[in-house]
Amino acid sequence: MITTQERPHVVIVGAGFGGLAAAKRLANKPVDVTVVDRRNHHLFQPLLYQVATAALSPADIAAPIRSILSKARNVRVLLDEVTDVNSVTSSVRLASGDRLNYDWLILATGSRHSYFGHAEWAANAPGLKSIEDATAIRRNVLLALERAETETHPERRQALLTFVVIGGGPTGVEMAGAIAELARRSVSSDFRSITPGCSRVILVEAGERVLPTFPKALSNAAKQSLEDLGVEVMLGSPVRDLGSGYVLCQSRLILAHTIVWAAGVEASPAAGWLDAEHDTNGRIFVDADLRVPRLDQIFAIGDTANAAGPDNRPLPGVAPVAKQQGVYVGNVILGKAKGDFAYRDYGNLATVGRSKAVIDWGQLQMTGFPAWLVWSFAHIWFLIGFRSRIAVMTSWLWSYVAYHRSARLITGDVAVQAPPRPITLERICA
Amino acid sequence: MITTQERPHVVIVGAGFGGLAAAKRLANKPVDVTVVDRRNHHLFQPLLYQVATAALSPADIAAPIRSILSKARNVRVLLDEVTDVNSVTSSVRLASGDRLNYDWLILATGSRHSYFGHAEWAANAPGLKSIEDATAIRRNVLLALERAETETHPERRQALLTFVVIGGGPTGVEMAGAIAELARRSVSSDFRSITPGCSRVILVEAGERVLPTFPKALSNAAKQSLEDLGVEVMLGSPVRDLGSGYVLCQSRLILAHTIVWAAGVEASPAAGWLDAEHDTNGRIFVDADLRVPRLDQIFAIGDTANAAGPDNRPLPGVAPVAKQQGVYVGNVILGKAKGDFAYRDYGNLATVGRSKAVIDWGQLQMTGFPAWLVWSFAHIWFLIGFRSRIAVMTSWLWSYVAYHRSARLITGDVAVQAPPRPITLERICA
Repeated sequence: MITTQERPHVVIVGAGFGGLAAAKRLANKPVDVTVVDRRNHHLFQPLLYQVATAALSPADIAAPIRSILSKARNVRVLLDEVTDVNSVTSSVRLASGDRLNYDWLILATGSRHSYFGHAEWAANAPGLKSIEDATAIRRNVLLALERAETETHPERRQALLTFVVIGGGPTGVEMAGAIAELARRSVSSDFRSITPGCSRVILVEAGERVLPTFPKALSNAAKQSLEDLGVEVMLGSPVRDLGSGYVLCQSRLILAHTIVWAAGVEASPAAGWLDAEHDTNGRIFVDADLRVPRLDQIFAIGDTANAAGPDNRPLPGVAPVAKQQGVYVGNVILGKAKGDFAYRDYGNLATVGRSKAVIDWGQLQMTGFPAWLVWSFAHIWFLIGFRSRIAVMTSWLWSYVAYHRSARLITGDVAVQAPPRPITLERICA
Repeated sequence: MITTQERPHVVIVGAGFGGLAAAKRLANKPVDVTVVDRRNHHLFQPLLYQVATAALSPADIAAPIRSILSKARNVRVLLDEVTDVNSVTSSVRLASGDRLNYDWLILATGSRHSYFGHAEWAANAPGLKSIEDATAIRRNVLLALERAETETHPERRQALLTFVVIGGGPTGVEMAGAIAELARRSVSSDFRSITPGCSRVILVEAGERVLPTFPKALSNAAKQSLEDLGVEVMLGSPVRDLGSGYVLCQSRLILAHTIVWAAGVEASPAAGWLDAEHDTNGRIFVDADLRVPRLDQIFAIGDTANAAGPDNRPLPGVAPVAKQQGVYVGNVILGKAKGDFAYRDYGNLATVGRSKAVIDWGQLQMTGFPAWLVWSFAHIWFLIGFRSRIAVMTSWLWSYVAYHRSARLITGDVAVQAPPRPITLERICA
């Protein structure tokens, strides 16, 4: 039992963009802060797909939370997991068995994959949220190429060389573009039996266009860029079923060894801890000052919250929203907030492959290489606080010039296995 | 069944320093080469301890074998594992079920940890041979620090902050120095409850000095450098027993949460495949031209071989020996070898922490910072062929200047656990 200090004790759950922004705002202010995260590192999620596709190393986009906050002497970091909140006693329960009392509680617990009620799909179509997810996808993709090199059965071989990305949002578009580059281009000189044209990368989207939150012209530009990279874009194709080695969209069966899920996320279980009202994605409906209704000491921010935007639609689950909310909540606690939370939208970016992007700045829209340059600088800029700006820039420049994939490591359990059983319609329908 | 080509087919088992050197020597020559390795990457093992101590990322010191050999159009790389050799039919059996016929066979299968008959020690005292070993040790060390931060029981806390390295050879010395820096210095500003002085790093060596293959003066210098870093060096202390949370040396019991094994290696099981004569470490006794006696088409090199040096003692298991043997065997196959294999010794290096090293060049011996500079440049030089010279240099410079540990990630299964059971003498003797 860790007791309340004399100064107000702020507990921040989650050290993503939102939680970290709040912690930084409260650094060296007259409060005591405890940041609880079940990971020891903050992750720059927008670049996670580059780890999954072997362009960057995990350490390039992750930094120990302790290091980031080491100068904030009033901030303590706990590697632990919150399992429940008791708003009556104002305390949170931790997986280690301890409890923490709080005067203020900030829930910034983020989101996880949502399989729309098909939890059984997770095993065959991993999503992309953590370093482990990224290295697992990297392993899948690279092992598929390795096995294709020695596979002589044509149908099995084609399945090994078919990569399906489900979901046409920014993550799906970025993954599909990056896999296409990895599988179709950058490995071409390394294999003896596989030629670049052998690989198929398919992006499956239920809706009528990719990047549905962007203006239509940008969606079309992104689709064109994907197709230039050799990605097959299947629109209006909700997934009906998937399993080991196959995806079924409408009436079309795709035999594919590697499937990546980028179709949806849901909030972490924070709403359940508080018994708070939430939307269908599990996001807590918050007041205009980001408080949980009727719980004045508790805030929810980032992907944990459903906060109404100016048009009364919920704000999107992107890093800038979480960051601005973290700063705002810090201000509320310090008594320095002016009025309700207002999101300042600096625009929307998504990248397609290693030299194209789309940017939506409202009036101004950009596509192609100029947009990619802006995207690169924006991302490197926001990597401040990581060691890694120099390292990331080096990696990128190097892979840009040399077309190498320096991080192309298969780690973890890579024991050689017997070849996968042939995938056939009979097996799927059995 | 992959059949023999018209040109002689050379099968190289293992893509460590020896196998890779042979493959490079045979690149684009009138032979067909197949390199078989159960990993997709070549590892620059001399720097593996820096991954284990969070100074470098895995990708900094590993590169896909395919990439390294991509320009060698006559070389094929197989991700597979050899399980047996049939010298009558001249073929090797693979874990995937295939067989490979060979005209020449080069066994460069390396070594693995040896626990001197105590295989049960492996679970509590992992060694350092692979990327997974390194990230596992990194996880152990970092998690111990995290748990110590919240542990209130003084004895358990001290055990969490005690790190024992077993074995005083180069790997053990390097590990102990690097752990001392990580645990005693570079994390000091990040934790609130742990102060640098809390941590103990103990190097346990059975013999009378560290670095026993170096001249005595250098051993003493290395010991002094270790002690300057705060490492306790226990000489003449063979390990009698170890288990979860403790090491027993002579009559002294050390309670330690983190134990690293650097005390010995043994050859891979290649000798068993051939029923060949081998030494107690499993290394095959080879002829003066590195052939396996009575098997003219089969060579053993690197850690797989016991090759007599000029003084009739076996050559040491270091990278330069393996590399020179690989080149030599390539020359034999190409009909270009002149006489027997002769090892050219360019000296011996070991490093202690981030600014000291010892170098043995026979007549000339060096210690301290100048030796460290030589060591750094030598290692960066030999990282040629990796992307990574620039990245490694950046990482090193950065960590040197900023004293950061950029790669300080805990990955893998880090689910928060209940605190470890208290370690007591009763539990150990039970």
